[in-house]
Amino acid sequence: MSNLHVEDTITAIATPPGIGAISVIRISGNNTFKAVDSIFRGKILIAEVASHTIHYGKIVNPSDELIDDVLISVFKNPHSYTGEDSVEISTHGNPYITQQIIELLLTQNIRIAEPGEFTKRAFLNGKIDLTQAEAVVDVINSRTAVSFRGARNQLDGLLSKKVRGLRNLLLNTSSYIELELDFAEENLEFIGHRELLDRVNEIITEIDNLSATYSFGKIIRDGINVSIAGKPNVGKSSLLNYILKESRAIVSNIPGTTRDIIKEYISIDGILFRLYDTAGIRIPNNEIEKEGVIRSRETVKNSDIVIFLNDIETGISKELYQELLSLTEKQKIITVVNKIDIDPSKAKNFDADLFISALTGEGIDQLFMKLKSLIHNVSGYTEKSAIVSNLRHYNCLIRAKENLLNAKFSIAEKLSGEFIAVDLRNAESDLGEIIGEVTSDDILNNIFMKFCIGK
Amino acid sequence: MSNLHVEDTITAIATPPGIGAISVIRISGNNTFKAVDSIFRGKILIAEVASHTIHYGKIVNPSDELIDDVLISVFKNPHSYTGEDSVEISTHGNPYITQQIIELLLTQNIRIAEPGEFTKRAFLNGKIDLTQAEAVVDVINSRTAVSFRGARNQLDGLLSKKVRGLRNLLLNTSSYIELELDFAEENLEFIGHRELLDRVNEIITEIDNLSATYSFGKIIRDGINVSIAGKPNVGKSSLLNYILKESRAIVSNIPGTTRDIIKEYISIDGILFRLYDTAGIRIPNNEIEKEGVIRSRETVKNSDIVIFLNDIETGISKELYQELLSLTEKQKIITVVNKIDIDPSKAKNFDADLFISALTGEGIDQLFMKLKSLIHNVSGYTEKSAIVSNLRHYNCLIRAKENLLNAKFSIAEKLSGEFIAVDLRNAESDLGEIIGEVTSDDILNNIFMKFCIGK
Repeated sequence: MSNLHVEDTITAIATPPGIGAISVIRISGNNTFKAVDSIFRGKILIAEVASHTIHYGKIVNPSDELIDDVLISVFKNPHSYTGEDSVEISTHGNPYITQQIIELLLTQNIRIAEPGEFTKRAFLNGKIDLTQAEAVVDVINSRTAVSFRGARNQLDGLLSKKVRGLRNLLLNTSSYIELELDFAEENLEFIGHRELLDRVNEIITEIDNLSATYSFGKIIRDGINVSIAGKPNVGKSSLLNYILKESRAIVSNIPGTTRDIIKEYISIDGILFRLYDTAGIRIPNNEIEKEGVIRSRETVKNSDIVIFLNDIETGISKELYQELLSLTEKQKIITVVNKIDIDPSKAKNFDADLFISALTGEGIDQLFMKLKSLIHNVSGYTEKSAIVSNLRHYNCLIRAKENLLNAKFSIAEKLSGEFIAVDLRNAESDLGEIIGEVTSDDILNNIFMKFCIGK
Repeated sequence: MSNLHVEDTITAIATPPGIGAISVIRISGNNTFKAVDSIFRGKILIAEVASHTIHYGKIVNPSDELIDDVLISVFKNPHSYTGEDSVEISTHGNPYITQQIIELLLTQNIRIAEPGEFTKRAFLNGKIDLTQAEAVVDVINSRTAVSFRGARNQLDGLLSKKVRGLRNLLLNTSSYIELELDFAEENLEFIGHRELLDRVNEIITEIDNLSATYSFGKIIRDGINVSIAGKPNVGKSSLLNYILKESRAIVSNIPGTTRDIIKEYISIDGILFRLYDTAGIRIPNNEIEKEGVIRSRETVKNSDIVIFLNDIETGISKELYQELLSLTEKQKIITVVNKIDIDPSKAKNFDADLFISALTGEGIDQLFMKLKSLIHNVSGYTEKSAIVSNLRHYNCLIRAKENLLNAKFSIAEKLSGEFIAVDLRNAESDLGEIIGEVTSDDILNNIFMKFCIGK
């Protein structure tokens, strides 16, 4: 296991940005205690205290001016998050103060941590495997019960355990073939042809089952993007407001007031739906609208579901429907007619999926039902099962399966053991990549780049 | 010292809201350890560990489902911020998780803390005095070197020490009078008429000196509100952008695009200037503009300085100047002509304070100089002096002075000692109110209401 940055000591603010009662600055690496002692005035030197103890004192600048009174939490290697010597400085929750302290630390042979670098070190130092490290960012970003449970299970190692099991099965199988190759001259058979095929088929089935969880895993992790599209004044903001039961968008009777894409979150049965109110995808009237139209079209393209909203008085807009079809697939569009409260008898004139009133709330429950019905495989989720929710893991599984299919072909064609061994070894490496036992700097950088600073 | 809430155990999220690497939940009160132990699974019971130690474990719900793995910091009374038994739970920085844990705590005979309640308890339990408690919120909210230093000095007790000194002087003086009253029948004189007057005058002078710091103290604490007013297209957003060196406001050539009051902060020599870009204070064209106009007028009224911005091509707007005069005082308005880059020779035609170009930056330094020159008494600030920056403290000083002037009158008129004693006692009580030695629930509630939750 390589630890490339073993010489560097790193720091970052670990708490969310902004003003609050307290903020926490994290420091990790060999130089931690020495650096902190040089700016800390307490009853005792941090380098001399026991791990997992807390010390009150003052952070001072080189002119001995007080920056803040703080609490210092001390974690001695290997009993820390990263496995290294670490400290957490708890300050008054003011960005001005944390900035001053970070600047002081930077003069003490410490550098700013890269995003995810604390967790990366935890991985490099063997505290957690790669799927667990990846789950950290999912745990932090999860917003609903289901997404949280999925991420938490991964952090607890459910997926790792499953993948590790499959990899062991594979190692076990390929070891027979490699034995046969070692004793090639004696022409010994350690595993029967039939048994070998059975085992490879068994692993393929397990991989298929795991891969199949991805379509749902992606949803529980990332949620569903829903955009609300419609001509001006059909009630897009009103619908959003009704759903959110609060007025975050400006509602008014002036066309085109929703200039920004407004994103809101709702949870239906623990699944996250991200609602985007589009500014309109029609031809822009002026410069400001132009930018809005570009962004709206992008939003519709990236949506899993588009609520195509119309006004019962002005009817369903055929031009807009055509425009939507040029941006997304037909089956993703729910055609909805709003303002049914004005004249319910008109409903029969329209070919719509749903009729609602954003004013009275009529039909909104049906809209929720419709949204839910568009999610497949939700029922396949059980609380304690390993789920693939990460594209990287999914791609590794797909590659492992391809290599196993190659192996199957070689077995069927009775090719030399060398061919089979290479395929099995590749599949094994694909699975190893999921949990980080086989990895490269590029893969790691790509993974940890997505973290927030301080984690 | 009364501690009305001694029975309650309180909790709140202490870190800024939002997503981050970690969040911290604070708990304080008698029931803290018992409550935490009921939801925490670690190697040891929190109730049994030493103060100032940190413990890893899991927070679980009543069905023993894992909510998060956490670090628990333990503080045993009186060695905590509040002086009570306290715990800080450090979780993954996700509002979903902190919310789950708070909800679990609420089932354990714990309630949500009121804003500032942790600090209020620190005050009620004698860990800090009232000016120090008030300084906590100022320390958290300070954004510049000068405001931070002022708040930090107050938290360190510079103002308390000064007020306590004055109060002792007063107690000492009034004790002679009260002695005389006690021995009234013997007609003893413990303090001469001249000396008494000298002492009262001395205290009045000291109070005057302290009160005089308020005009500056208010500025270092609260900063200066500057609004930028002008007709559409004179370059309000461009000026703001130039100052901020980034494009936070939408700059475009369409009149009336700055619909919201945009507030930005800059620091000039450590003094905070809050810049407001007003949407226009002219007659509104439609509903959305109407609200903007109302807010803009309010902003101008509340500003310490108004930058009245004009375009060199369209000239200084007399109507707008008249409107500004109806909202604020003449001496607060700086008349500025923008776009001097277009034709510098035109400058001579205008009666303006300054000519600038928000495009090239010409004249912006002079604008900064002008802003600074409008702040009085800045030079009166020394790093280590007690400063009054809080209106409550200022009002107490004013009342104390009034009572001392009454005492002076009574002394001059040779009124009975009873009158003098009452006035001195009132003044003493006014000073005691500053540091919280004389106080009421109303005063306390009013003070701590302004805190953020969790402090």
